[in-house]
Amino acid sequence: MDAAEFRRRGKEMVDYVADYLENIEKRQVYPDVEPGYLRSLIPEEAPEEAESYEDVVKDIERVIMPGVTHWHSPYFYAYFPTANSFPAMLADMLCGAIGCIGFSWAASPACTELETVMLDWLGKMLKLPDDFLAGTEGRGGGVIQGTASEATLIALLAARSKIIKLIQADHPNQSETDIIPKLVAYSSDQAHSSVERAGLIGGVRMKKISTDKKFSVRGDALKKVLEEDRAAGLIPFFFCATLGTTPSCAFDCITELGPICNAEKIWMHIDAAYAGSAFICPEFRPLLNGIEFADSFNFNPHKWLLVNFDCSAMWVKKRSDIIGAFKMEPLYLKHDHQESGLVTDYRHWQIPLGRRFRSLKLWFVFRMYGLKGLQAYIRKHVGLAKEFESLVRADQRFEISADVVMGLVCFRLKGSNELNETLLKRINGARKIHLVPCQLAGKFVLRFAVCARTTESHHVQEAWCHINHLASELLQELPH
Amino acid sequence: MDAAEFRRRGKEMVDYVADYLENIEKRQVYPDVEPGYLRSLIPEEAPEEAESYEDVVKDIERVIMPGVTHWHSPYFYAYFPTANSFPAMLADMLCGAIGCIGFSWAASPACTELETVMLDWLGKMLKLPDDFLAGTEGRGGGVIQGTASEATLIALLAARSKIIKLIQADHPNQSETDIIPKLVAYSSDQAHSSVERAGLIGGVRMKKISTDKKFSVRGDALKKVLEEDRAAGLIPFFFCATLGTTPSCAFDCITELGPICNAEKIWMHIDAAYAGSAFICPEFRPLLNGIEFADSFNFNPHKWLLVNFDCSAMWVKKRSDIIGAFKMEPLYLKHDHQESGLVTDYRHWQIPLGRRFRSLKLWFVFRMYGLKGLQAYIRKHVGLAKEFESLVRADQRFEISADVVMGLVCFRLKGSNELNETLLKRINGARKIHLVPCQLAGKFVLRFAVCARTTESHHVQEAWCHINHLASELLQELPH
Repeated sequence: MDAAEFRRRGKEMVDYVADYLENIEKRQVYPDVEPGYLRSLIPEEAPEEAESYEDVVKDIERVIMPGVTHWHSPYFYAYFPTANSFPAMLADMLCGAIGCIGFSWAASPACTELETVMLDWLGKMLKLPDDFLAGTEGRGGGVIQGTASEATLIALLAARSKIIKLIQADHPNQSETDIIPKLVAYSSDQAHSSVERAGLIGGVRMKKISTDKKFSVRGDALKKVLEEDRAAGLIPFFFCATLGTTPSCAFDCITELGPICNAEKIWMHIDAAYAGSAFICPEFRPLLNGIEFADSFNFNPHKWLLVNFDCSAMWVKKRSDIIGAFKMEPLYLKHDHQESGLVTDYRHWQIPLGRRFRSLKLWFVFRMYGLKGLQAYIRKHVGLAKEFESLVRADQRFEISADVVMGLVCFRLKGSNELNETLLKRINGARKIHLVPCQLAGKFVLRFAVCARTTESHHVQEAWCHINHLASELLQELPH
Repeated sequence: MDAAEFRRRGKEMVDYVADYLENIEKRQVYPDVEPGYLRSLIPEEAPEEAESYEDVVKDIERVIMPGVTHWHSPYFYAYFPTANSFPAMLADMLCGAIGCIGFSWAASPACTELETVMLDWLGKMLKLPDDFLAGTEGRGGGVIQGTASEATLIALLAARSKIIKLIQADHPNQSETDIIPKLVAYSSDQAHSSVERAGLIGGVRMKKISTDKKFSVRGDALKKVLEEDRAAGLIPFFFCATLGTTPSCAFDCITELGPICNAEKIWMHIDAAYAGSAFICPEFRPLLNGIEFADSFNFNPHKWLLVNFDCSAMWVKKRSDIIGAFKMEPLYLKHDHQESGLVTDYRHWQIPLGRRFRSLKLWFVFRMYGLKGLQAYIRKHVGLAKEFESLVRADQRFEISADVVMGLVCFRLKGSNELNETLLKRINGARKIHLVPCQLAGKFVLRFAVCARTTESHHVQEAWCHINHLASELLQELPH
């Protein structure tokens, strides 16, 4: 395919994409296929000879679409949202064409510099403390990671490296393998599974701190565990706080936790993967108070800020901490401008070496929506969640299982876990809307997350009617 | 921006992308900017109000392009290639629109299933042993990772987890922290820096095995180190072989190394990040002989197989090894079809949780080029490298520093490292072409890697004339 054909096919694809998104609600949100459905629809081997583009394109509807879970359908209420916007898609087209691999400043200065400045823009939108901004002389700064899982891992590894150096400064005879077995990292018992996984990868002990009735970690709970662990000869070094947990969007109390971490020289990382986007609104910003105590902070614009996946924003207070954990400099990656104050080589900030020009997506989205447009988007989703909450509260058969703070509503039928499992099975079985469950204090709970950019009040009303109807059917079947 | 405006702007962007790539050789391959150039060109904060699309688009040429290193220019000969093709870009547009996050089968069955089948297609193109294919009942299979760095890390972590379980089966009293300090991983002294980094992240000792005159690790060299390490009470558990090293595209001798690793129960991972694409040609496939001894294998279609970044293909012989190292199952990620033979939950195969629908790129590229088209592409690049090699060999002032097997030519002026450093500085300073250096056996060497899809013989000739001219100037300046 040459440039001339790309012009034609690209324009057709733009129309296909627009058609898909404009008409997405006509498609069944969750597919009917059984495992293994796709293999029999296509050949067993790649073709020897080139095929025509028409043949490829007509297979999109035949092979792919029947097996797609439509995350951008306004009937999709599962997991958390993943962002999708036209400006971000335009930026991604440009990113693909430039196709640079921005592992160092020299590998494409624009790729690195736009990223640094966009993370400063975003940091200012969130009113992050200046320590986290790069500016022209800052010691901190931001970076785009692929996912929050990687950000947590990077933070944990930087913390591990830092504590080892700190201990070795006082005890030069202690080797890494003497120290690592004594290290302990902590997170909420509500934290995402990726936090536990980061501990597993980093080869350090990871303990879960119990949460209060609102599913938040409080200062006292952390303090108690720290005292026990210090007494047992362990070395606490890392605490991952969560703002907006995955099960119920709960918030750890970082104004209490932060000072403890600072006093105990424990790295505090804040994972606000979903909720972080909302902090651009003044009314939600107080939930981020305590950020001044953190060493690193992360959230996913690719969840709730209209920037298509992947784009996970991470900031650190001291870039030397993160770089120090990974720096390697083979000759083929050295360049003339290395080590000057203005130059950032992002390969030292992340697990992979290669990286795309993802900051273009931030640039397009920030400018095409403006701060006000983005705030309006967040508020609309929160409003829709509140609307769903009041529908649930008005029905005596149901209960709300956790405070509704942002775009997530946790709810259940009053009654057994089995009852709620059956309800969820029927909801997802009907394929009209799609939800996933969670477990809260031993209870099986349904999660209703406002996800799609195009979700409107009538969709939420319709979803509630549907749930209500299925619940009524289910309850009628039960013996009284 | 609504769908109607996206239709218009998307088509404009398609034309911009086509114009950019059609005219890329008119742009200076390496930018003139100084560190920090970009910050002053744009505001210090994101706009409050939305801007017009025209304003955003005109900033591409004003702000971005002056700072871009043009990786797809036929004057770019640095690092290794990164792929760029029109079919891959079309697939990426579709990927962005579907925008599913395929962490589990249920999260979008098509995303998972196309990936499994495309990795089988690609595995067959490479004539991988059947053990590595998923098929409908296979124990192995393939996965798309972001980068080769992640593939190496995943392999090392899986190997670490496997050896620990193996030891604990015989010695139930030994804890992970007893075992890890004794573990040793190995790689070539020519291996990519990411291999050493994987050891650092995994918290295990990593040793470099010296290479022979052709920069290859041989069986004897590994054997010797293994004997020493076993005698010292260490536990060898992982060897990362490289096929096509970054400095010189050298090949470790896996037919010698594989049997040793198998006999010693050491996980052999093969990193063929760059060279792997060439194994689709029968004439290069012998370089992959010995793959039957490997536990895992990885290469980057996003380097040399016309699939835009990111798309790093990895296969394992036993998927249970890799899944076993990471599996975590919170309720919100469980689904009905879990654990059945046909279902793959790729989140257990990788570091991040989220993942894009990247297999669409493979599907489009395989079908639009066909196996023959892809083979022709590889052969063309190798031919261009051979052409450059003969130009260098015909000039008595120069020497070739390593066998030219694929698309990379390592060469230098006969003389001191300083002389060659100066030559490279002048080449890159002139901004006509772009190269990076490497170090081979203590010598400073220039790397000429055929990179762009549109590089033709006349570009290579022109590049050589330019280098030749700069070398003549430099040599004339020297005192005789």
